[in-house]
Amino acid sequence: MKKLRENAGNLQSARKSVKLFDATLRDGGLVNNFRFSDEFVKELYKTNLACGVDYMEFGYKVSKKLFSVEKFGKWKFCDEKDIRVIVGENNTDMKISVMSDVGRVDLQNEVIPKKESVIDMYRIATYVNQIASAVEMIEYCHKMGYQTSCNIMAISKNQESDIIRALEEACKSPVDVIYIVDSFGAIYPEEIRRVSDMYLELAEKYGKEIGIHAHNNQQLAFANTIEACAMGVNYLDGTMSGMGRGAGNCYLESLLGFLRNPKYNIQPALKFIRDYINPLKQQGVIWGYDVPYLLTGLCNVHPSSAIEFLRDGRDDYEAFLDKLMGVEI
Amino acid sequence: MKKLRENAGNLQSARKSVKLFDATLRDGGLVNNFRFSDEFVKELYKTNLACGVDYMEFGYKVSKKLFSVEKFGKWKFCDEKDIRVIVGENNTDMKISVMSDVGRVDLQNEVIPKKESVIDMYRIATYVNQIASAVEMIEYCHKMGYQTSCNIMAISKNQESDIIRALEEACKSPVDVIYIVDSFGAIYPEEIRRVSDMYLELAEKYGKEIGIHAHNNQQLAFANTIEACAMGVNYLDGTMSGMGRGAGNCYLESLLGFLRNPKYNIQPALKFIRDYINPLKQQGVIWGYDVPYLLTGLCNVHPSSAIEFLRDGRDDYEAFLDKLMGVEI
Repeated sequence: MKKLRENAGNLQSARKSVKLFDATLRDGGLVNNFRFSDEFVKELYKTNLACGVDYMEFGYKVSKKLFSVEKFGKWKFCDEKDIRVIVGENNTDMKISVMSDVGRVDLQNEVIPKKESVIDMYRIATYVNQIASAVEMIEYCHKMGYQTSCNIMAISKNQESDIIRALEEACKSPVDVIYIVDSFGAIYPEEIRRVSDMYLELAEKYGKEIGIHAHNNQQLAFANTIEACAMGVNYLDGTMSGMGRGAGNCYLESLLGFLRNPKYNIQPALKFIRDYINPLKQQGVIWGYDVPYLLTGLCNVHPSSAIEFLRDGRDDYEAFLDKLMGVEI
Repeated sequence: MKKLRENAGNLQSARKSVKLFDATLRDGGLVNNFRFSDEFVKELYKTNLACGVDYMEFGYKVSKKLFSVEKFGKWKFCDEKDIRVIVGENNTDMKISVMSDVGRVDLQNEVIPKKESVIDMYRIATYVNQIASAVEMIEYCHKMGYQTSCNIMAISKNQESDIIRALEEACKSPVDVIYIVDSFGAIYPEEIRRVSDMYLELAEKYGKEIGIHAHNNQQLAFANTIEACAMGVNYLDGTMSGMGRGAGNCYLESLLGFLRNPKYNIQPALKFIRDYINPLKQQGVIWGYDVPYLLTGLCNVHPSSAIEFLRDGRDDYEAFLDKLMGVEI
């Protein structure tokens, strides 16, 4: 039985079991349709190595039968050859991951055996009610030789009893890591501690690890991530300057500055932000906290309506909130 | 003996003892030298009333012998007549406060008896080592009939034992509220809970209330404020869209959305943000999270060097961090 909670430590600890996970290309790709230049991706890879990041997610692995290669950049598909252009054989300590949504990848044809692949981990994104399909995907990827995670999304919409049932299904699978995913940025630190404890209890029983992927709608992504970490959650997602859908994610540089393990180094991230993130913002790529995201977070709904609201140049926040709350005027 | 901690409640509680404190003019005034239009201030007053805010701070009360009325707008001085232009006799449930730094106000000549004033509370800003002078000011303002608070700044630089000694001095005074002030945005939620418990223990013993004023250097101002609140801290500072020095403060709208007491209403704040805060930003008034503030927060130093760094249009973050850490290259 794992002792995740007992060994959690405190602020001054440098817990070696913590894994820092960069999801800039994957969640950030949702902002720019995965159209990153090769230079951006190469520099991000080098930066993550220099920062001591443990996992770098290159994007989604989804089927080209379902999504158009004209409409999306290549990191929506993460072809083996495209990753190798960046990493070669990736003879480093940093692991490479891709994310697949339930039902969106052709397992038999698109997931090759690990020994032929430079990918180390498949992260399976699922809703609570899709858990049986997620488990099938996990079993397949595990059988092919990969590490796997089960990222149960939008849990702020589910009853605790349903989450526990999904967690138990995931725990009985060969999955390595189960993620707490606050898709709507709706969860407060007090709740994150409660949720973390619930996930950790089952993880300890079944010998799994727990991760967290937070959104910044209420400017709580970093707080929730470090609170979960203090409970014993080991896999911490972040992105450069929080780049990600809507309000974005936990800032990787905040985690690099916070964690006490001397293997982590914030300086290369600062350089990357200046040279590659600031220019993206200047080009008009938009993400990060804004009023409409606070409101979708407060109302515990998907940020899509807030993204649309901002894209339309609207600022009638009150009407937007009324609509979110179901008040038609 | 007060039971602040025992009665703290949880997320779903609506604790009536919570007081929401708008410090937009005071901490925001540090960004624009207190040059707010009368229209801005009048609308902010109306907005706070409509939102259910409990206290509105109009600015500083400092001596005109020490600061030039040419260099600063009128809310640096908070003349009685200027406040009355906005609030008349303030026949409302919302209380009015001003802040005075230790040694910066001529008590005998500039603090009139409460019965002649529309001000309800003096907040005395002090460092730990100035606590004796702060207590003298508190005694004076209390004697004149005002509510008082003692805002002990920059405590992340002080030893706990010194903070406790200062707290005990403050507790023995007639002060009503003692504030936890994270001037540098350096404190993590885990520490805020520890600090809150320390303050609350003394507050309960002496029958005082505790408040919190947080800064957003690490995007933790809101998280720290609600964590303190959950411990039993009752006076919660916020500003509209976090307007305040450097990285700014806890967003008042986040607190309005978070608190469960039906007296609080976020809608008027949303309107104010659209009509008055967004235009300020468009005019180039700058505050809020940025990389250099993360770095001064991480290094636990005053944000002044980060403000200067940004004012100079610099983006050499690595050199800035090296300098903060005392590494000369």
